[in-house]
Amino acid sequence: MKAAVIGAAGFVGGELLRILLQHPEVDSVVATSRSQAGQAVGAVHPQLAALTSDRFAELEPEAAAAGADVVFLALEHGESARLAPAVFAAGPGLVVDLAADFRVRDADLRARHYGPHPAPELQDRFRYALADVEGTALRGAAALAVPGCFATAAALALWPLAGAELAAPPVLFAVTGSSGGGVKLRASAHHPTRAHNLFAYEVFSHRHGAEVAERWRSWTGTNGAAPRLTVHAGPFVRGIYLTLHARLADPATAASRYAEAYRGRPFVRVMDAPPELTHVVGTNVTALHAAAADGEILVMAAIDNLVKGAAGQAVQAMNLALGMNEDAGLRLAGPFPC
Amino acid sequence: MKAAVIGAAGFVGGELLRILLQHPEVDSVVATSRSQAGQAVGAVHPQLAALTSDRFAELEPEAAAAGADVVFLALEHGESARLAPAVFAAGPGLVVDLAADFRVRDADLRARHYGPHPAPELQDRFRYALADVEGTALRGAAALAVPGCFATAAALALWPLAGAELAAPPVLFAVTGSSGGGVKLRASAHHPTRAHNLFAYEVFSHRHGAEVAERWRSWTGTNGAAPRLTVHAGPFVRGIYLTLHARLADPATAASRYAEAYRGRPFVRVMDAPPELTHVVGTNVTALHAAAADGEILVMAAIDNLVKGAAGQAVQAMNLALGMNEDAGLRLAGPFPC
Amino acid sequence: MKAAVIGAAGFVGGELLRILLQHPEVDSVVATSRSQAGQAVGAVHPQLAALTSDRFAELEPEAAAAGADVVFLALEHGESARLAPAVFAAGPGLVVDLAADFRVRDADLRARHYGPHPAPELQDRFRYALADVEGTALRGAAALAVPGCFATAAALALWPLAGAELAAPPVLFAVTGSSGGGVKLRASAHHPTRAHNLFAYEVFSHRHGAEVAERWRSWTGTNGAAPRLTVHAGPFVRGIYLTLHARLADPATAASRYAEAYRGRPFVRVMDAPPELTHVVGTNVTALHAAAADGEILVMAAIDNLVKGAAGQAVQAMNLALGMNEDAGLRLAGPFPC
Amino acid sequence: MKAAVIGAAGFVGGELLRILLQHPEVDSVVATSRSQAGQAVGAVHPQLAALTSDRFAELEPEAAAAGADVVFLALEHGESARLAPAVFAAGPGLVVDLAADFRVRDADLRARHYGPHPAPELQDRFRYALADVEGTALRGAAALAVPGCFATAAALALWPLAGAELAAPPVLFAVTGSSGGGVKLRASAHHPTRAHNLFAYEVFSHRHGAEVAERWRSWTGTNGAAPRLTVHAGPFVRGIYLTLHARLADPATAASRYAEAYRGRPFVRVMDAPPELTHVVGTNVTALHAAAADGEILVMAAIDNLVKGAAGQAVQAMNLALGMNEDAGLRLAGPFPC
Repeated sequence: MKAAVIGAAGFVGGELLRILLQHPEVDSVVATSRSQAGQAVGAVHPQLAALTSDRFAELEPEAAAAGADVVFLALEHGESARLAPAVFAAGPGLVVDLAADFRVRDADLRARHYGPHPAPELQDRFRYALADVEGTALRGAAALAVPGCFATAAALALWPLAGAELAAPPVLFAVTGSSGGGVKLRASAHHPTRAHNLFAYEVFSHRHGAEVAERWRSWTGTNGAAPRLTVHAGPFVRGIYLTLHARLADPATAASRYAEAYRGRPFVRVMDAPPELTHVVGTNVTALHAAAADGEILVMAAIDNLVKGAAGQAVQAMNLALGMNEDAGLRLAGPFPC
Repeated sequence: MKAAVIGAAGFVGGELLRILLQHPEVDSVVATSRSQAGQAVGAVHPQLAALTSDRFAELEPEAAAAGADVVFLALEHGESARLAPAVFAAGPGLVVDLAADFRVRDADLRARHYGPHPAPELQDRFRYALADVEGTALRGAAALAVPGCFATAAALALWPLAGAELAAPPVLFAVTGSSGGGVKLRASAHHPTRAHNLFAYEVFSHRHGAEVAERWRSWTGTNGAAPRLTVHAGPFVRGIYLTLHARLADPATAASRYAEAYRGRPFVRVMDAPPELTHVVGTNVTALHAAAADGEILVMAAIDNLVKGAAGQAVQAMNLALGMNEDAGLRLAGPFPC
Repeated sequence: MKAAVIGAAGFVGGELLRILLQHPEVDSVVATSRSQAGQAVGAVHPQLAALTSDRFAELEPEAAAAGADVVFLALEHGESARLAPAVFAAGPGLVVDLAADFRVRDADLRARHYGPHPAPELQDRFRYALADVEGTALRGAAALAVPGCFATAAALALWPLAGAELAAPPVLFAVTGSSGGGVKLRASAHHPTRAHNLFAYEVFSHRHGAEVAERWRSWTGTNGAAPRLTVHAGPFVRGIYLTLHARLADPATAASRYAEAYRGRPFVRVMDAPPELTHVVGTNVTALHAAAADGEILVMAAIDNLVKGAAGQAVQAMNLALGMNEDAGLRLAGPFPC
Repeated sequence: MKAAVIGAAGFVGGELLRILLQHPEVDSVVATSRSQAGQAVGAVHPQLAALTSDRFAELEPEAAAAGADVVFLALEHGESARLAPAVFAAGPGLVVDLAADFRVRDADLRARHYGPHPAPELQDRFRYALADVEGTALRGAAALAVPGCFATAAALALWPLAGAELAAPPVLFAVTGSSGGGVKLRASAHHPTRAHNLFAYEVFSHRHGAEVAERWRSWTGTNGAAPRLTVHAGPFVRGIYLTLHARLADPATAASRYAEAYRGRPFVRVMDAPPELTHVVGTNVTALHAAAADGEILVMAAIDNLVKGAAGQAVQAMNLALGMNEDAGLRLAGPFPC
């Protein structure tokens, strides 16, 4: 199988390459980058120096996609939609977008969080690729919109609750590491002021709320208030830790829904104690714990923001879409402690 | 004024000494420690080497308290109650306990979280010293129970909501640094596995929940469900960051309650954006932000767990109890960035 | 091939298992632990949950070694020597010791740093397994003493200089992460006081100095002053960064020795700029840079202390001793940034 | 006394303001900033919110300096020299420059490290303000060039050795925190890639080498090889840790020189064990340890890069120049652990 990664020089691109270069069904990977064209991949992504001596190609999207079985778009939001027509024109078997451009279908929700859709005519081609929930339902998809990192953690914590009777939509709090903001310099990721810090941001306005709301509506069939996700930046590099709270009629039953909902799902680990963030860093695993008492349920979810929250989920969804083993290339076991 | 700190070798003891040694109304400070008796204070607490050449005394509590205007107990939970009778017997002007022994008055709540009271006959002497709320109401108190670190952040975020009409008790999520667990070695504070980690703990069972429940009941007059506080350990050393969520009839009004509730309080900073944790580290400040939308309110609170959550609040309460300037010795300005 | 890891519950044991479980020539791995006997390996080493559902065996060393092609001892110093006779008695093809017990051959050097040898009669069986230098010379070894983590970094920085004419033995400064001290709680790895700290320790007395001195003597043929290695503890979890300085007659030539000395060695990366520590974390790579000016040479070396400095080097040496591909199981590519 | 800080919005400016606002002899402080003019000082420097409600002034240097007893220049290198004529023209009692512009007197050394001098005609007015060494010799100075942060640590470790007989110039290795690079975003201080990293930089070419060489020449009277300082970036925010190695005839005597050299100096702490970096963070203290064996000496020095390495030393030098108590405003005791 031949894969192409367009925009491969960022953090997500690096993790995509790491997985694809070791994927048993992938024979070749083309990595393009405008900013790093001509540079050795291993010079930009030091973890890949042992796996490849390739250089970033300067190919136009259409040329990169030509002949590829799967094309990954690891671009800034907006860029995906701009380049997508050329990519589709090249006729690859599968297009996987890791930006936000095709995640939200509801026009109002989308407009409120992102403004006008840059390529509405392409929206219908995309399936929302929440891999741990969708599973084999993704089989045969021609284009996949990979969920956002916070949205992934939130949706996976929410899904088993969709059928429960709730007093109000759940409330979710999440903390992300600094790699979530990417390789570009930002004041909020300046080491001197980020290193020992924690702070909420985009209160009531984080864009991943749109995806979470759309999931919740589709699962519950209601059009009312959505779960409330509040995000924080923490002083670590990798991972998202999310805690959900809900009040409901039968919390004990609700807690047991987690094991049932994810039974047999290879990358969801339902645990009998709260997960630790470092236990999933470097892996495609979603670790979940649900506890109930006094009419309330608390659920903790831990994921690696760049793997399960981006590159790993993208490859998992590709595996599912193309009918391969779901865990092909994804039994990642990183160093520990790390 | 003469002060004594019993059990001064821990992290809270060190911060108490740092504040008292620079307090304009405190002439002398006796620091006792069983484990460090005879050691130079500056060898155990390096930040104090510039302020004192004293050594830890091996005095029994009664001897340490004799002649003291104020006695601080910075001991393990249970130890305070054990030593308190001897301390009271020495007749100091004021006893300030930083352990949990005298924080919870309700017998049932207390028993559920802590087991049998070790010294119920002394409980009535103690005032719960939530200094930013109580203010001059602490004047004349003879004994103060300093709130727990999480409880302080939670109570300060909750107080302005006590009079609002809520659909359900608020939900609170908090993350603490590793100094909250003290100087004693613990697996959860082992650097290799804590350094980049985040995890919830004591889900549905953290002891500070008792204080929070008691505060909420007294403020709202209800005896029903209490706010739910879920605590997490984060990969930083200092501080607690707390985020509160509630659904209520008039969230916009609720948000404005924060500025009103804390008007004129010298150590509460009500901000128009979420606080950052490092901005309050090393200070006695509580930084708060409240935002409202869609029938919901979100409140962020940031404190230094060892200052506002322990030593600083203790001295603030002492200042109030003894009728001194509330901010005497507490205009702390630490290094930044740090 | 069948492998056994005796004492597999520590950090080095976990990394050994991670590598062996993915090693193409290793069919089965027995992991023993006294402290964790019966526990799931994936519960103790979270990174391994995706790779194995095995539990730690409680086997005695002889039973664990019986029928094994290779036995790894990942024990405390002293324990290896105590258990080695029973392990050898079981007749495994290869014994690989990761403790310090068989690293130093010179009796005086050994005695000065470690006291009396616990099993001098076994010393001659062991080859010092500095894999990046020894290479195929390890072929056929029956027992391997894996170098210490600091000693590995130091020796690899020193080796190309052994033939150069020096004004004095080189001077080396190294900083290690906290994982080097292992899973056992220690005051020097208490998160609150380690997290933002840096300090030298065991000045003039670090034990790895014995290995470095013995290497230097054997390479240079002199019996005089040894290179001086000073070690520091830093506020990170993984890795060792070492900087070497020497004054010599022809530094420019000396710098070029590095590329020559390690030409063709698969795990040594000689770079044209100083390495960064995180670029080798999680890998078996030694990254080196040598620069010369004004009669001086500066060499930087970066390794992962638990991989190249322990488990990775052990497997690399096993590969060499047993005539397998040197890089079998060792093309590790961890997450980045991390 | 009236002080002005020109360029007060950076990290060094913030620490200067923190010290000056609490200095017993300073009545008023004017803080200017082009980038933050009009902003509240406490919004830019959160640690100062409790100390001042002032805003940054937009004054031209001459206006800011007019009537000031002391003017601090906390500007980019080059800017100081550009603005200095106007500042001197205003006639302040003392000018204290924290940039590199007036640190190096030797024209060749300067040119090699910095290029042409931007204001050679002003160079003679400046005294090199290595406060812990110069002491009362600074009395009456009209202009002070504050040493660089690495240069401060290096010079303080070197000074007691200047009179010893050495086989070769000492070798120094130092590690700095990320705050040393300032408030401006840089790739080397991007949190995701800095957070767990360590790396050498500017090998053989760090600019502070010029100051170190000039100090060494003036102290030893030789014009030969200079001490070799190699600098590293570490994953912490505050502080510099430096380790020096030298071979010399009588190392034991050399070690004892440290206590003698700094006897009575209020900010130098000569210790009998290696200092820890966090023990001096937030303070103006230089902590030193010297150990000798086998014809070698090892010296460790720890300083806060923004206090002793910049703002603190600047105020200490001001105190000395103006004949005030050397420690006025500088008995800083920050939070610990932190």
